[in-house]
This record gives sequence, C-alpha cells and structure tokens, in this order.
Amino acid sequence: MKQTRMATSPVLTGIHPLDAEGLRLIHAYWRAANYLSVGQIYLLDNPLLKTPLGLEDLKPRLLGHWGTTPGLNLIYAHASRVIKRRELDAIYIMGPGHGGPAGVANAYLEGTYSERYPDVTMDEAGLRKLFRQFSFPGGIPSHNAPETPGSIHEGGELGYALVHAYGAAFDNPDLTVFCIIGDGEAETGPLAASWHSNKFVNPARDGVVLPILHLNGYKIANPTVLARIPENELIELMEGYGHRPVIVSGDDPMKVHQQMAAALEWCLDEIARIKRGSDHERPVWPMIILRTPKGWTGPKTVDGVQVEGTFRAHQVPVTDFESEPGHLKILEDWMRSYHPEELFDASGKLVNELAQLAPRGDRRLSANPHANGGELLKDLRLPDFREYAVTVTRPGTTLGEATRVLGTYLRDVVKNNPDNFRIMGPDETVSNRLGAVLEATNRAWDAEVVPGDDHLGPDGRVMEVLSEHMCEGWLEGYLLTGRHGLFDCYEAFIHIIDSMFNQHAKWLKVTRTIPWRRPIASLNYLLSSHVWRQD
Amino acid sequence: MKQTRMATSPVLTGIHPLDAEGLRLIHAYWRAANYLSVGQIYLLDNPLLKTPLGLEDLKPRLLGHWGTTPGLNLIYAHASRVIKRRELDAIYIMGPGHGGPAGVANAYLEGTYSERYPDVTMDEAGLRKLFRQFSFPGGIPSHNAPETPGSIHEGGELGYALVHAYGAAFDNPDLTVFCIIGDGEAETGPLAASWHSNKFVNPARDGVVLPILHLNGYKIANPTVLARIPENELIELMEGYGHRPVIVSGDDPMKVHQQMAAALEWCLDEIARIKRGSDHERPVWPMIILRTPKGWTGPKTVDGVQVEGTFRAHQVPVTDFESEPGHLKILEDWMRSYHPEELFDASGKLVNELAQLAPRGDRRLSANPHANGGELLKDLRLPDFREYAVTVTRPGTTLGEATRVLGTYLRDVVKNNPDNFRIMGPDETVSNRLGAVLEATNRAWDAEVVPGDDHLGPDGRVMEVLSEHMCEGWLEGYLLTGRHGLFDCYEAFIHIIDSMFNQHAKWLKVTRTIPWRRPIASLNYLLSSHVWRQD
Ligand SMILES: Cc1ncc(C[n+]2csc(CCOP(=O)(O)OP(=O)(O)O)c2C)c(N)n1
Ligand SMILES: Cc1ncc(C[n+]2csc(CCOP(=O)(O)OP(=O)(O)O)c2C)c(N)n1
Repeated sequence: MKQTRMATSPVLTGIHPLDAEGLRLIHAYWRAANYLSVGQIYLLDNPLLKTPLGLEDLKPRLLGHWGTTPGLNLIYAHASRVIKRRELDAIYIMGPGHGGPAGVANAYLEGTYSERYPDVTMDEAGLRKLFRQFSFPGGIPSHNAPETPGSIHEGGELGYALVHAYGAAFDNPDLTVFCIIGDGEAETGPLAASWHSNKFVNPARDGVVLPILHLNGYKIANPTVLARIPENELIELMEGYGHRPVIVSGDDPMKVHQQMAAALEWCLDEIARIKRGSDHERPVWPMIILRTPKGWTGPKTVDGVQVEGTFRAHQVPVTDFESEPGHLKILEDWMRSYHPEELFDASGKLVNELAQLAPRGDRRLSANPHANGGELLKDLRLPDFREYAVTVTRPGTTLGEATRVLGTYLRDVVKNNPDNFRIMGPDETVSNRLGAVLEATNRAWDAEVVPGDDHLGPDGRVMEVLSEHMCEGWLEGYLLTGRHGLFDCYEAFIHIIDSMFNQHAKWLKVTRTIPWRRPIASLNYLLSSHVWRQD
Repeated sequence: MKQTRMATSPVLTGIHPLDAEGLRLIHAYWRAANYLSVGQIYLLDNPLLKTPLGLEDLKPRLLGHWGTTPGLNLIYAHASRVIKRRELDAIYIMGPGHGGPAGVANAYLEGTYSERYPDVTMDEAGLRKLFRQFSFPGGIPSHNAPETPGSIHEGGELGYALVHAYGAAFDNPDLTVFCIIGDGEAETGPLAASWHSNKFVNPARDGVVLPILHLNGYKIANPTVLARIPENELIELMEGYGHRPVIVSGDDPMKVHQQMAAALEWCLDEIARIKRGSDHERPVWPMIILRTPKGWTGPKTVDGVQVEGTFRAHQVPVTDFESEPGHLKILEDWMRSYHPEELFDASGKLVNELAQLAPRGDRRLSANPHANGGELLKDLRLPDFREYAVTVTRPGTTLGEATRVLGTYLRDVVKNNPDNFRIMGPDETVSNRLGAVLEATNRAWDAEVVPGDDHLGPDGRVMEVLSEHMCEGWLEGYLLTGRHGLFDCYEAFIHIIDSMFNQHAKWLKVTRTIPWRRPIASLNYLLSSHVWRQD
C-alpha cells in the first residue's frame, strides 16, 4: 500500500466535550471503581465504611497493585462512555493486568460480576465478598486472570498486551480493542516490537486497536524509559512506529476527564474516517499517551515521604497498620475521599445514575463475547485428509515431502475458512514447504509493495514477521477470541516463546474450572528443522 | 541527565573523503572479501579460478547465506579503514551472523585466520582449505561461531546484536563497537527494545556502540518492515529511540564507498565530540542506516528471474548446476567479476597493497582481545564470605533473610571491583532484597532524573530495565568480553530468556574445544519468588 504522513496530532487542552453533568457523573463512576479497588486490596469487612475503620476490618496480609489501578479505571470509564455514545463493539486489554482490582471493580459496577458469580451480589454482603475474596486463600488472584469477566489477557508476564489486542482484532471488522500498555511493559522486547503490528492490519476486514500508553512514570522501584525521555522524542518514536499520538496529561481529574473524553472522540473520529477507506494508503492509526501520576488519588505522603506520583505507589501504598497508628487514618481518609455514601445506597447497591452509565448487555466491556471466545467459536470446515494421501504404488519408489503435502491441505483449509483461520510464522512458511497455501491467499502486508514481491497483500491469511513473540501473541489473541490457527516455526527458535506458551497453558488450565468460560480452539504448532541448527 | 535535541543528520551525497587511490584500494579489498565469501559457499577446488570452473570444483551440497554478506564485508572494510586512521580499539558484532562467510573471509584477509588455524595458509592450498571447510562435514559452521576469530556473537537466533554490543561497551571507555543489525533482526522483540540501551550508557566510563542498520530489504522470503516504511518514518523511529541517523544508500559501489566513508567520519567525529563531554546532556548518539541491495554484486538474474536486490539472494543465489547447464557460467562470471587475479598473486597470497590496508596486530577486528574476553579476564576481588555470617546464638531465635544478607556481600563485591562487575535485573533488585548494593552504587541511568528518585546515575553498577532479554544480553556481552556479573530475576520470568541461555551455553560448550578461546566468567543467576507466581 502507498503510505503518506499527515498533519500532527491535535492539542486537546481547552476542548471540553463533557458538560457539567457528564463530568460529574463520569468522575463519580471513576471514584466508584477506585473505591472498589482500594476495598479489594485492604478490607475484610465494613465495606461501606458505615463505622470508623478498625484494624479488624483489614486483611492480615496486604497484596495487590494500586499504582496502575486508577489509570486503568479512568480509561475504562471513558471507554464505556464512548461505547455507549457510538454503539461500539469493544473489548479492553489491560497490559498492566497486575492491576487486577480494576478489572474486577469494573465488572462488578457493570453487573457482570454478579451475573457470573451470583454469590457476589450487588449489596453490602456482596461488596464484603468482593473485597474479601481478592488475593485471599480460596479467593481470586491479585491480577487479571481467567476469572475476571471481560479479560482475555492474564496480568502476569508483561509484554503481550498489543499482540493480544491485534490478534483479537484480526477478522473482526467491527471490533474496537482498547489496549492499555504500561510504560514499564513498553520496555519489554515483545512489546517494543509489536507496535509494528499496524503494518499487518487490513482496515477493511480487521478491527481496530487503539493503544493507550499509560505513562504513570514508574515500574517497580525505578522510573521508566519512556517517561523520562523528552516528550518530542516520545512522539517521534510513536510516529516512527506508524501512529499518530495524542497526549492526555495532568493530575487535576476534572481537566484530565475533559482531555480524555476529547482524545477518545478524536481517535474514534479518525478511526471512522480511516475505516471509510477513501485514502488508498496505509493509515496512520491514532493512539493515546496518558501521562498521570502513579497511584493517583491515593495517599499523597506516608510518614513524610511522597507516595502518589512515585514508584512507592506501585503495590500497597500504605501498610504497617499495627505498628504505625497514624496509617489507619491515612487509609480511612483515602477511602472516604471517594465519598462512598454518594456512590452506593444504604443497602450497598450502586446508585442508579451510575449504574445507568454502563453500556448494556453484551456491549459492556466485561460481558463482550469476544472476551470469552469460546462463545463465538465455530468449527473449522476441514477437507477430508484422505484426499491428500500420497499414492504409493510400490514400497520405496515414491518421493513425497510431509510438509509439502500438508501445504496443500492447509491451502484448502484456508479456502474453506476465509475469515477464521490464520497461519503465523517468522518468515518460514515457504522454507517449511507450506508454500501451497499461497495459492489460496497472500501474506498479510499493509506496508509498501514493489514489483517482484511474492504474494503480499492486506488481505493475506499468512502472517509473517521476524518475531516469534509476535507470531505467538497474535495467534493467542486470535484463538482467545474464538478463532483457529497454526504457528509454523523452526524447532530451534520455538524456545523463544517458552514462557508465553506457559502462560497461555496456565490460562487454559484455569478456564477448565470456570463454568462460564467456553473452551477455545487448540494452539497448533508445526515445528520443522532440527533443534540444534540455529541458523 | 538533561537531554536536548540537536540539528538533524547530515546529507552525505556529494562528499568524497576517498581519493582515487583510496577508493580503488577499498573497493579491491571489498572485492577480495566478497570473492572469498562466494568461494566458501561454492568451491571445493580451483580456488583461484586458474582453470575454467567445472562441476567437479563445486560442493555437492550448497549451504550458506550470501544475501547479507556483501553488506557485512563492505562495513568491515570501512570500519578497518577508520580503525587505522583513528587508531581505534574496536570490535565488530555481526547481527546477521548467518552471513558466516564474511567473518571468516575478513579474518583470513587480516592474517588472523592463519595465525589461529595454521593449516589454513595464505596461499592457494590454504584458500582451498578455507573454501572447503565451510559448512562441510568436519569443517566449520555456516554462520558466525566461536570458531570465527573476532566474534563474540553467534550467528544463530537473531535479536541480540545490540545488547551484546552494549554489554561489550560497558566499562570499556576506549572501545568502539561496530554493530550491524539486519532489518529482519530489527523486527524481533529483543532487538526492538534494545535500542533504548543508549539510556544506560555513561559517555565517560563506557565505550561506544555505533549501530549500523543493514537495510537490504528482505528477511528470508519477505520484505522487512523497516525497509518498507517511508524513510522519514524510519528516521523518526531512530530519533525516537534517541539516535541521530545518517543514511548511506545506493547500488553504485563507488558512490556508496564515498558515502560510507563520509558517514563513518561524521559518526566518529560526533562520538569524539560527545566523549569530550562538554555538554551536560544525554548525548544523541549517531547511527548509520545502510540501504543497499540484498546479495549485492551477485547474479542479477537467474533463469530470467531477478535475484540481486530481492529475497532470492538470501541464501545460495544460484544452484542446480547439474540440471541447468547455464548456471555454471553465471557462477563463474560472478566470481571472475571480482578479478581474483588482481587480488591474489600467483601463489594465492593476498597482494601486498591490500594486505597493508588492514590494521595491525590487536587492532585488527578479528584479533581484538575484547572479542576473546578470556584473554582480558581478571579474577574478582571477593570478600571473605564468613564475615557475612548470620550469628545464631540459639537455634530458632534469629531472623535473617538470605538475599538481604547476600545484598551486603554483593555491596562489597561492587566496592572491590568498581569496573568489572555489574548486576542486571528487570527492576527487581530491591524487591529481591539486594537493596544493600545501593549503598555502594547507583542504578545506571542516563535519562532524566527528578527529585525523589532513588539511586539513579550514569555511574551505576546496577542495571535495571523491564526486559529480561536486555538484562541477559547485556550480561552475556559483558561476560564475553572478560568481565563478571549477576542477573537477578523472579524465577517466573527467567523462562523468557530460555533460548538465549541455550545459545550462550552452546557457545561456551564449543569454545571448550577451541584452544585459542580463553575461558570466560560464569553466568550467574539469582532466581527468587516462586515460579508460578507470575505477577
Ligand atoms: C516480563 C515481566 N518481568 C517482570 C515482571 C514483574 N513486574 C510486575 S509489575 C512490574 C512493573 C510494571 O510497570 P508498568 O508496566 O509501567 O505498569 P504500572 O507501572 O502501571 O504498574 C514488573 C517489573 C513482570 N510482571 N513481567
Ligand atoms: C529468532 C530467529 N528466528 C528466525 C530465524 C531464521 N532466519 C535466519 S536468517 C533470517 C532472515 C534475517 O534477515 P536479516 O536480519 O535482515 O538478515 P539479512 O537479510 O541481512 O540476511 C531468518 C528469519 C533466526 N535466525 N532467528
């Protein structure tokens, strides 16, 4: 495809898409999600703070990641707003899935949590359960996990947010994938490479990934690289990756709400324009850089040391309640700063005006069927393998190559299943003798094409990029959203994705025990060449 | 450090640093390297083409990667030129180390090969051996390997060129590392992340990495992403990564020689200016983008199909000599186009005027001791571990944490070995309870520092980046050049570098059998946390 560069990104300060009431409501929704997140990290009991907080209300062992959570909640609230306004079909990938409280809190606010787990009711008793179960023996993990409604993305090993998002978007032309990437995660190899996924997207038949780089400045105990380079350098980087970034930045919630709303409107207008497909050029997809304090709205200082806006907010920002009597007040003030009494009624139910903000039914991010791919799974239409038999008239006289024959079978699988089967590989499909598939399809390619190129086109079902991480991640995202595929790789290099495979297998193992998770298709590998020939 | 942006890169067309004689000589040197590379891929015999090429002169099984080789040879020749002019101490990392013929050819031209392997003499018999042994039973691998003098970098699994280069440069203030990165390799995750290594370099106490992105356009059977995005997008990407790129581009060797010479002079001037250290800002390090045809100077077409400048040049560009009688002439014409009779005398010895071009002794890229790290290895000065014992007066009454105690020991190792011991980790040094090391040193950090930051500075011996690939790769490069270190990591995430570890172990295994390779220090891991807690 031809490719052009266009005007730079808009400056959004000064644009106010939210009227006073809209602003009040979205801020209240965010406060509710933040309140529920803090509650999960800390509380055993007294979920509505009906009485002063006591030591006996606190969990004995405090676990969880607060730092990333307010940002995740903010984006979630704003994403839900535009889903409703624009009737989007969308899912939400939480790169910093260690911010597990955010996923759970939002699913709860949307009512999905109680639908999936009827014992976690939308009242005080349910809130108590919700809080208590988090990272508690017999409860749920502290990170985004298969248990979390709306998730296809484990909050464990970082690096795969974008590839999972793209995998979900392929062949889902009407899907929008909000993909949050931590600035820590952005330092990983797989993530750094996967920005280039945008050269493999077909605007006509694929969905859209909207990357939101969550620049809260820190990883565990250190600043992040992308937060500490000059902003114009960061913008160049994102433009170099083929994106048009728009920046949302600040620590005043009211201002950030307006900017965030404006940024999303601008991005979705851009996306709609691109999707109309008038320009015959590789699109420059929009993305958002969100620069807000780590642990935003949490304790500003603890024992005289700054916490909000620093790496100290990464996990549990205030602890040691037994030994430090002042800490309980910090926590209580913090939780009360969200004004739970305005968010939940006396019975513990989310107040109506907030419950009504969420999208309805399947449109809720936590209930979208694409995030429970098994619900959408269709069997592959497979040809009869006997028709591909190599005829052997006399023993020892017929020559045949296993993968060359398989190639003809796969060619017909591609033909029969034009929108739910893909083949991924690090540029080894032909060298693995599967070349026959190219009789039925191209290699996916949305960058420049020159004379002499071999089977490249935006429509391709074969996806070749020299990154085993991207191949694996795309395929995982594709499978997790209910489709089928194959990864062909030299055996020598499959070890590159050992740990990704482990994480995927762990996900599958856990989903077996979750009744509402529907089974998805298997992850198929074709490994060729001898493992020790690493060249 | 403060950081500023400066003027954009120079345009080099029209600058001619080479006089006619200099141009003639460097071109001849390049031809010699190319000739030796083709010879290795094809010839069993008749190494000087003293008689017309016959089928019996060819290897029965043709292996090797031609496509990348002319580019590797070109950069090598020009790097050697500036090493001599500027008396540089330098090593050469071949990212596309599958272009193994290039490493061997250049070591041979420099005389190092015959020093290391006295049976491969600098005459016709030696040439025959050199050609025959390549990718031949009982011979040497087809890729850069421990056997290749001057290499610390295996030509196997792609992705680690830059991290190895940086690992080599740390604490070697006078070393220049020429690092060639294939545009295919640039698609991998580890490589895409590792450009940011430049934020962890201290211009005063570390050496310099000069990245050269080898944009020959193709990987195995496909174009590469970076070759098919608009040039301004690629420049933005490199600037976003914190580099100032200079572009060398063309297919006319004479013009490219001039541009390449000019580019290197400009880069090395820039580097010298940065090294003088007058600006108190994070430097914007130069880099080169080299855009030349894949398989340059090889057969233009075979059977009417274009080969030079396409993916068809990736491995062996012309084959099937038995069945296609015209092919032998293609090969012979190709080899004779380098005019071997001008490059080697009748005895098969490299002519004097070319032999004199190479740097002398240790300054030869193939003989630099940094590329045989064991030669430079110094024992660590280790404190007596007994002094760190935890006193236990009565059983079951003393509390102690293993890694916290280890931290105090490591602190003193850092103190005693201020320039040849480093600790790498994905931001987990404190959470792994090794915090005491920060009493003796900082975390390496050359990007912005703000109040409240914890132990950051360009001088740090602790290197934290959220990329297990970078940690492992930096450490490997550091060890391979004769130093010591430790990688501390959560056990859950060490699987991310399984395949890197395999490749390193393979390297070590092979070096055991190579007498001139001196042993290097062990690769030390400290793994903490339970493997299944992936968050
Ligand atoms: C591959 C990998 N290495 C290390 C970790 C340990 N870890 C957990 S959270 C975290 C920091 C994440 O930073 P970021 O992505 O910016 O998220 P946020 O700051 O928003 O929490 C690290 C290093 C991990 N989860 N995955
Ligand atoms: C991680 C990894 N995956 C796959 C391969 C197989 N492979 C060998 S060479 C090559 C293409 C390399 O392209 P590039 O880096 O541009 O080198 P060049 O084109 O100069 O040969 C591939 C994919 C590999 N060596 N390493």
